[in-house]
Amino acid sequence: MSDFSDRIGNVKAAMADRNVDALCVSVGSDLPYLTGYRAMPLERVTMLVIPSNGRPVLVVPGLEAPRVDVVDGAFDVYGWAESDDPIAYIDQLLHGATSVAMGDETWSRFVLQLQERNTARDFTPASELMAALRIRKSPLEIEALRNAAHTVDAVVDEMAQVRFSGRTERDVSREVIDRTIAGGHETMDFWIVASGPNGASPHHEPGDRVIESGDAVVVDFGGYQNGYCSDTTRMFVVDRPPHGFDDAFEVLQAAQAAAVEAVRPGVTAASIDAVARDLIVEAGYGELFIHRLGHGIGMDTHEHPYLVEGNDLVIEPGMVFSIEPGIYVPDDWGMRIEDIIAVTDDGVERLNRSDRSYRVVS
Amino acid sequence: MSDFSDRIGNVKAAMADRNVDALCVSVGSDLPYLTGYRAMPLERVTMLVIPSNGRPVLVVPGLEAPRVDVVDGAFDVYGWAESDDPIAYIDQLLHGATSVAMGDETWSRFVLQLQERNTARDFTPASELMAALRIRKSPLEIEALRNAAHTVDAVVDEMAQVRFSGRTERDVSREVIDRTIAGGHETMDFWIVASGPNGASPHHEPGDRVIESGDAVVVDFGGYQNGYCSDTTRMFVVDRPPHGFDDAFEVLQAAQAAAVEAVRPGVTAASIDAVARDLIVEAGYGELFIHRLGHGIGMDTHEHPYLVEGNDLVIEPGMVFSIEPGIYVPDDWGMRIEDIIAVTDDGVERLNRSDRSYRVVS
Repeated sequence: MSDFSDRIGNVKAAMADRNVDALCVSVGSDLPYLTGYRAMPLERVTMLVIPSNGRPVLVVPGLEAPRVDVVDGAFDVYGWAESDDPIAYIDQLLHGATSVAMGDETWSRFVLQLQERNTARDFTPASELMAALRIRKSPLEIEALRNAAHTVDAVVDEMAQVRFSGRTERDVSREVIDRTIAGGHETMDFWIVASGPNGASPHHEPGDRVIESGDAVVVDFGGYQNGYCSDTTRMFVVDRPPHGFDDAFEVLQAAQAAAVEAVRPGVTAASIDAVARDLIVEAGYGELFIHRLGHGIGMDTHEHPYLVEGNDLVIEPGMVFSIEPGIYVPDDWGMRIEDIIAVTDDGVERLNRSDRSYRVVS
Repeated sequence: MSDFSDRIGNVKAAMADRNVDALCVSVGSDLPYLTGYRAMPLERVTMLVIPSNGRPVLVVPGLEAPRVDVVDGAFDVYGWAESDDPIAYIDQLLHGATSVAMGDETWSRFVLQLQERNTARDFTPASELMAALRIRKSPLEIEALRNAAHTVDAVVDEMAQVRFSGRTERDVSREVIDRTIAGGHETMDFWIVASGPNGASPHHEPGDRVIESGDAVVVDFGGYQNGYCSDTTRMFVVDRPPHGFDDAFEVLQAAQAAAVEAVRPGVTAASIDAVARDLIVEAGYGELFIHRLGHGIGMDTHEHPYLVEGNDLVIEPGMVFSIEPGIYVPDDWGMRIEDIIAVTDDGVERLNRSDRSYRVVS
């Protein structure tokens, strides 16, 4: 049995538990998780249809069919021609199914077209069904995440040796990308270099701002290595930190470390968020920590579990997620420290291990 | 009035014509077309809600709100906090709307969640509504597409001077990427280098195959420059073409040229596909031309109009699309020639102008 046959078997069992008659997955990582094949996010629909009691069929544009590698006969492939109506074909595959789980990232256009064909059919998001499988990583998956983390850790150390001042954010960002690709990543997902006041925008897009002495610079980047994601954030300071930075950074480091320490099987996702948040609130920076503590990571950069207030999900061994508190002072500076950690039987393994202090660069 | 105010005004007029009470757009290019803001494709929902008779509201994750630049007060912004329920808020914004058009690429999860809140509301894909606006490009949009085309044309000419043999597809592909970024593109969208038998798979992913003497190599790449897309395909041949290549290439060039010649306002999209296809069929290669002739291009690499059998859409000035016939011999080789053209008042402007002959490289 291949991994894919196993995973399809597991998802069918989960479907039976939830009275789901059919599962459809399209763009995003659910599809490669189940089949090894990733669909292009295009107007030509790709959809894997898994009936609860039948053979899975991968419906793909005919011109993409040569790219599909069916491992161990885990599913059939139907390549549709340019003048075919693939929605009609998928509707036929769903014949008899009343409850259909639909992959989260599937284009709404295709779901609405399927609904129009059969208004009696009930579609629900496949989020929880798929998360139940994907949220606990296998040792091989953790190995892939560990390798991806090592690559970005090395890039952080390299960047600590280069000059930042006088360069645009975009230029520094390009260097981060090049070094990460050279380090073994196939593609990048994001490449934040946010300097000075731009650091206060957590997802700032690197632009034309020229980095200068006295800037704090948030460097948050990640991509794909052997199909699994990296994601780390470290702080760089040009010559000297800005006013107020050191005091806040001490709080941030302590909060990040305490949250990592708090991770073990049996605690809730929300409780880990609270550990970091409480420390930051007590130190008076609570209003400036404007996002959740972290997110799961695997074949997607963001996936379950989410470490956020209100999420009572219980942490289990094999879960992998980020711990990334931040403090953001509008118009002034921002800071964030981010590690990916894997939950073990009795605690955590840190996948990112580069120095968490801020790095002073020229 | 900004472009965005104008465009929102135009889409409201189109909504009135179609009895659409509200339009929702999320990830993809509809959102930046209407607002200048592009949403990250993440689990945190971003959605612009345009009621037919009220102010548009852009619902964004709070931590993304600093990235939104509201030009000329064209819309309001609502930043939701991590523990809020943004779907509930969007549902409130849709209060009173029974017919809602939903952006094509919106994650199905969010549409299904909105449907669950109000089962009486009717959601339809926004495809045609948005295409009616986006399909005819303004002179400024065509200028952006022309500039993007010039960049990739220059890269094609540069690649004609480099060695292909002895290098992996991935390595050559990386050079194409680097040169295109150096030429002025902000990001890449795709970077096909398909050598020898891999060329028979139209969307082949560049891999470890080492290119050798006698290979035909399909190079098809594009990306984004100032928010608009490039997309061109040229053929490279290492030392000498494979058996049967020259005869087929002559047919392909003639078919591509005839299709470009056939473009003018008033003809149908399908008729242009037929011009190229008929020539290829007559020459005996019909079974090997396995995809449509072309696709519109603008802020997306693939958008309306699609040049495909059965599409009776009438071509109008301002439309911009690819003309890209291909011939694919399984296990042997593939070939494709692709130009982007803009429809003028009485014919076409070719945006790609690099030599369409195959380039002999070492």
